[in-house]
Amino acid sequence: MAVRLPTGFQAAGIRAGLKRSGRPDLALLYADEPLAWAFAGTTNVVQAPCVTRNRALHQGGGEVRAVVVNSGNANCANGAAGARDNDAYATATAEALGVAPAEVLTASTGIIGRPMPMEKLLAGLPAARIELADTADAFGQAILTTDLVTKLAEASLPGGARVVGVAKGSGMIHPNMATMLAFVATDAAVDQATLREMWPRVVRRSFNQLTVDGDTSTNDMAVVLASGRVACEAAALERALLEVCVSLAKQIARDGEGATKLLTVRVSGARDEDEALKAALAVAGSSLVKTAVHGADPNWGRILAAAGRSGAASDPTRVRVAMQGFELYRGEPLPFEEAAVSQALKAEDVQIEVDLHAGEAVAEAWGCDLSAEYVRINADYTT
Amino acid sequence: MAVRLPTGFQAAGIRAGLKRSGRPDLALLYADEPLAWAFAGTTNVVQAPCVTRNRALHQGGGEVRAVVVNSGNANCANGAAGARDNDAYATATAEALGVAPAEVLTASTGIIGRPMPMEKLLAGLPAARIELADTADAFGQAILTTDLVTKLAEASLPGGARVVGVAKGSGMIHPNMATMLAFVATDAAVDQATLREMWPRVVRRSFNQLTVDGDTSTNDMAVVLASGRVACEAAALERALLEVCVSLAKQIARDGEGATKLLTVRVSGARDEDEALKAALAVAGSSLVKTAVHGADPNWGRILAAAGRSGAASDPTRVRVAMQGFELYRGEPLPFEEAAVSQALKAEDVQIEVDLHAGEAVAEAWGCDLSAEYVRINADYTT
Repeated sequence: MAVRLPTGFQAAGIRAGLKRSGRPDLALLYADEPLAWAFAGTTNVVQAPCVTRNRALHQGGGEVRAVVVNSGNANCANGAAGARDNDAYATATAEALGVAPAEVLTASTGIIGRPMPMEKLLAGLPAARIELADTADAFGQAILTTDLVTKLAEASLPGGARVVGVAKGSGMIHPNMATMLAFVATDAAVDQATLREMWPRVVRRSFNQLTVDGDTSTNDMAVVLASGRVACEAAALERALLEVCVSLAKQIARDGEGATKLLTVRVSGARDEDEALKAALAVAGSSLVKTAVHGADPNWGRILAAAGRSGAASDPTRVRVAMQGFELYRGEPLPFEEAAVSQALKAEDVQIEVDLHAGEAVAEAWGCDLSAEYVRINADYTT
Repeated sequence: MAVRLPTGFQAAGIRAGLKRSGRPDLALLYADEPLAWAFAGTTNVVQAPCVTRNRALHQGGGEVRAVVVNSGNANCANGAAGARDNDAYATATAEALGVAPAEVLTASTGIIGRPMPMEKLLAGLPAARIELADTADAFGQAILTTDLVTKLAEASLPGGARVVGVAKGSGMIHPNMATMLAFVATDAAVDQATLREMWPRVVRRSFNQLTVDGDTSTNDMAVVLASGRVACEAAALERALLEVCVSLAKQIARDGEGATKLLTVRVSGARDEDEALKAALAVAGSSLVKTAVHGADPNWGRILAAAGRSGAASDPTRVRVAMQGFELYRGEPLPFEEAAVSQALKAEDVQIEVDLHAGEAVAEAWGCDLSAEYVRINADYTT
């Protein structure tokens, strides 16, 4: 089931030999004309050279032509050599594609603190160029690390413009493996200033509402690129970008390390969107909520407490809490049949609703359950 | 091994029948003269009536004579009935002891969202009064919930004043069971203003640097009470309070739900104490660090990334990371023998050191490993 890229884009994913598993590990996205783009990067002050360099290019304001991504090595915490290697990686990609180095964005994900295998990387670039095609699937494969599935999403706009997104991530961070990366391509006609104004809003309501384990990667980034071929309204583009990014965020949550369930938390009745976003994320990220969801335990108290910890739910006598549509708390505990709710919580999709009854704002966050398998994966990684 | 209370205090712990297990569940601390005191309560906006009432009494500025604590029922999220029950609980305790209701602090821990079994509680109060004695042990027993061990600590000051602390807690919150409670008694002569000025500093460097699962209880509190019998210097008292509270914090971390190890994180070289405190807590609270510690995995990358997430470690080329005394990273990865470090990490006490090399400030935080047992305990609680 190949996902066709928007007009103006080509992509490839190949095996450069960075992963011991032999899986694809070098991905290339290329456009035959300059692209408008916008970038959101990790807020971690420890960040990989690829993040630092892309951020500087973003501030520079120029257009780009390509994104190169490798999995298997994050090139982070490698001292001065890491920055030099990242620059060389961008330059070699630019040479292979016949564009300028400043038109190439880089992204790396994988083990940190190990030197980049530059020979293998550079040798892989011409091969990646030859494989360039009009589908996103091979690119989506080659950026994975501990992910179990490829994450792709697409949306269409009135007028025919399209949005295609590719992402990876399974622990929110996992400095050996993981990191969240997302690349979203569109052929919509949008100027760079407009794209950069809407992208933070889209990221805030999608990837920033995603939590797997509460850690923040050194290599996280979300990039949108627009080839500008098809006319569209800015509002329609923003809706399509949000649809694609929310879909990718949910796919990442569902594939969270050790996860058996996708957890969706919807907070309504907040005084403003910021309060709703924070409360939803606090509930989705609570270890106690996550373990309760894992155990199909209708533990509304943990939900109420997590919403309270976020600073919302300041009047618990007005709050309503529901799980899987069962109302469990409305200002005070409600009687409910535990066996029935617990049975409903055994589903792979768990929905938590918190109505703060303090305003009109609504937001969602996505996470997953916390399982013994998460502990096993992360306790046994290196050794 | 009975711990004698400071001069002027008596305590008791009895079985009032709140717990199905039949374990002690009603604790009383009493002083024959009014006490100076200071209070720190949960920052969760969803808070139990006991927290709200104690905070109001604290703002009122009066002295107190007694603290009554029950385990087994948190009396939280019980609507208006919860506040009425808490008031009645304070009033009945005051009557049993012959003091004013405003001289009685209350604390509750246990299941939330279930009505307080007031008959059993009130019936237990005269019995608790009869049991009052000059040791802290029975009190320490009766405030436990999922804790496996009683937490007691003591310190002596030059001049003979003493500090005795009692605490409970094993999940940082766990709205069915848990919450952190700490009560510290001293016979040191200290006026209320001085005590209230030093208490936030002590709490900040002890209980607020403790993390088990990142959640914040609705019922948390830490109270210090002073009978004023023995002269001392304020600085010496603050040191002794800190010693007792750090000991209690470590005892709670070591007894964390599912924990097999005590994790101590020491951050040095920070620009100020706030940066050091935050960085230490971020490392101790990281799910990825906690699972690595559980698996005896020398994963310095997760430590560096967690310190970076806190906003510290902004120049990773200057940071130093060590585990169990083995230096693993100094601006760049260092070669080390994985088997030797992993062997050292199998100890029950794990020490992580992060030197930011950016200033002179130092701080510690305490936590525990994250085990599959934590998931089991919290997934299976209610059902």
